Amino acid sequence: MNTAPDDRRIAGLTYRDAGVDIDKATASLTAIGNMARATLGAVSGVREIGHFGGVFPMPSGPDRLLVASADGIGTKIKLAFVTGGWAHARVGGDLVRHCVNDLLACGAKPLFFLDYIAMGKLDTDALEGLVAGMSEACLDNGVALIGGETAEMPGLYAAGEYDAAGFIVGEVAPDAYVDGSAVRVGDALVGFPSIGLHTNGYSLARAIVGLTGEAGTDRDLLNQPIAGNAATTLGEALLAPHPSYQRAVRPLLDAGIVRGMAHITGGGLLDNVPRMIPESLCAEIDPAAWEAPPVFAHLIERGNVDWVDRYRAFNMGIGFVVVVATDHLAEALATSGEPRVIGRVVPADDNARIRIHGITDGN
Amino acid sequence: MNTAPDDRRIAGLTYRDAGVDIDKATASLTAIGNMARATLGAVSGVREIGHFGGVFPMPSGPDRLLVASADGIGTKIKLAFVTGGWAHARVGGDLVRHCVNDLLACGAKPLFFLDYIAMGKLDTDALEGLVAGMSEACLDNGVALIGGETAEMPGLYAAGEYDAAGFIVGEVAPDAYVDGSAVRVGDALVGFPSIGLHTNGYSLARAIVGLTGEAGTDRDLLNQPIAGNAATTLGEALLAPHPSYQRAVRPLLDAGIVRGMAHITGGGLLDNVPRMIPESLCAEIDPAAWEAPPVFAHLIERGNVDWVDRYRAFNMGIGFVVVVATDHLAEALATSGEPRVIGRVVPADDNARIRIHGITDGN
Repeated sequence: MNTAPDDRRIAGLTYRDAGVDIDKATASLTAIGNMARATLGAVSGVREIGHFGGVFPMPSGPDRLLVASADGIGTKIKLAFVTGGWAHARVGGDLVRHCVNDLLACGAKPLFFLDYIAMGKLDTDALEGLVAGMSEACLDNGVALIGGETAEMPGLYAAGEYDAAGFIVGEVAPDAYVDGSAVRVGDALVGFPSIGLHTNGYSLARAIVGLTGEAGTDRDLLNQPIAGNAATTLGEALLAPHPSYQRAVRPLLDAGIVRGMAHITGGGLLDNVPRMIPESLCAEIDPAAWEAPPVFAHLIERGNVDWVDRYRAFNMGIGFVVVVATDHLAEALATSGEPRVIGRVVPADDNARIRIHGITDGN
Repeated sequence: MNTAPDDRRIAGLTYRDAGVDIDKATASLTAIGNMARATLGAVSGVREIGHFGGVFPMPSGPDRLLVASADGIGTKIKLAFVTGGWAHARVGGDLVRHCVNDLLACGAKPLFFLDYIAMGKLDTDALEGLVAGMSEACLDNGVALIGGETAEMPGLYAAGEYDAAGFIVGEVAPDAYVDGSAVRVGDALVGFPSIGLHTNGYSLARAIVGLTGEAGTDRDLLNQPIAGNAATTLGEALLAPHPSYQRAVRPLLDAGIVRGMAHITGGGLLDNVPRMIPESLCAEIDPAAWEAPPVFAHLIERGNVDWVDRYRAFNMGIGFVVVVATDHLAEALATSGEPRVIGRVVPADDNARIRIHGITDGN
């Protein structure tokens, strides 16, 4: 069953389900419907109707490309189970912001979002937290939350656990679509800092810090300070948000100076940066150009993580990369989000598509 | 990480993961990329490009509505774990067909689909089966599979288990959008038969037949014949496909004779039929008008299922309902899919929005 904001229900619930409080479920659905409805104003002209599908009005106009992306939160979601409370909203928001960045990396403007939430047993606190986080992130990024599916799936998910996926659709004019084909030798790589692991590398991180899945033990672990920053607990560092880079990067797109972009997610800099430059070119990156948040050193030291995993499982401190011609570098560095030059584009002499100083050349 | 057909990868995989065969994973990703790519021809003009997002060209034209839907398979998916083999493709196809029907119920034509697949441990047979089933259903329904997310999430899903969600986008001209507001007293309810539970009621059904989650025991149970049909095993009956009603219903939409539609999913006839008629009206349904597949009697008898759960958890033999004026009834009944009159629209005298003869009046 799929539902639009105004009539979302829970698939799998029947009156037969012992222990399900139907009134509580109904109240929760009303609450999340209201949260979703509040986002509809984020995009002008959205009609509030829902009848088996969410509806988004596509005004008449010239040819354009619809760009769509599906994402999950990875096993960061398991940290939300342990932490509870605010952490549900955090991972809900992360899902939206991750999706927004994927569209941004193509030059596309996000239009609307739908969610899929599957729970072992209806947990209204978690459900409302997730949708509150998604709604807030949608409003913040000008995205309408037009529908979603909420399923109760006992026997697949444990009670207290859930998974969430997000789907986003945006648009871009064909001549504004950015796929990196315009990148040239000599161009500058401009990196935007990450503020943590975002939504990638959590299976590795969880194994390194020794999270067991036992709530009490895990909670104690997450309350310990991390190396290099006594004021931050491991839990706070690992649940740092996956930010949206839209506010920082959109002005550069509007100025027409962006030649390539990469959202640094699964695969890290190693896999994602080569995706945004032509095959004949190589990205030469200097990791001394930025400082990664302390959580990375904490994980790498404890886990004795080799360089490939470091730069493939983790973002290592860079969340988004933009390529500009050096003529436009000053303009690019003047945008928000603390961008800095992290490298340059060179010919791919020996088929290497990415070189990280002191890292890839050490192997 | 989100990926388009030509560069789908597995989120969560790192070289560090002991026991992961990277070559096998790569071969599997190539295979599913090829399956997805084959669907792109299903819709004219789709560009084969993928760069952080799947891309669909929206040609210039008058105002139209984009209609989007998110769906899962419910715990039917657990039957695929037990059965394996062909069952992965079955539930993958079910996901697409379920989504297609949701758009159909608004009058919308499907354009593109994306998937989210999360697994405890990469299972290339299951992954390739799922995407094969999705691709086949996409081709059959004129939908382009433009991207998806595949995540390995150990610790959330057990090895051998997974969840899958689907996301579909379609379009409809504003004056062709069907929301049931045109339904009038005296109109006929035309039902299209279901061929099983489709994708709803499985948590109840699994409890009734006594599936335990233990593979050997469950396999034995599913191999037993069902009551009333010695030639069909319980497993075959429970894994019967969720069909697409597009081929049957599209000609009625094109003829402009459809006043309301309901896709009978979670909530059954009881919840879904009232959604498609104005609040002042009531759907009067005669269950003697059709014969439900034997699996329903099997479940209801063994589970001693009361009437509310019967008509809310299960579709009870009707998968899709169309409302037409009696003037157009002969035309509606002439389409494919074995439609039959299952009732009519009457005033909602006592606030009842649906009456099922011999059922709702017995309480």
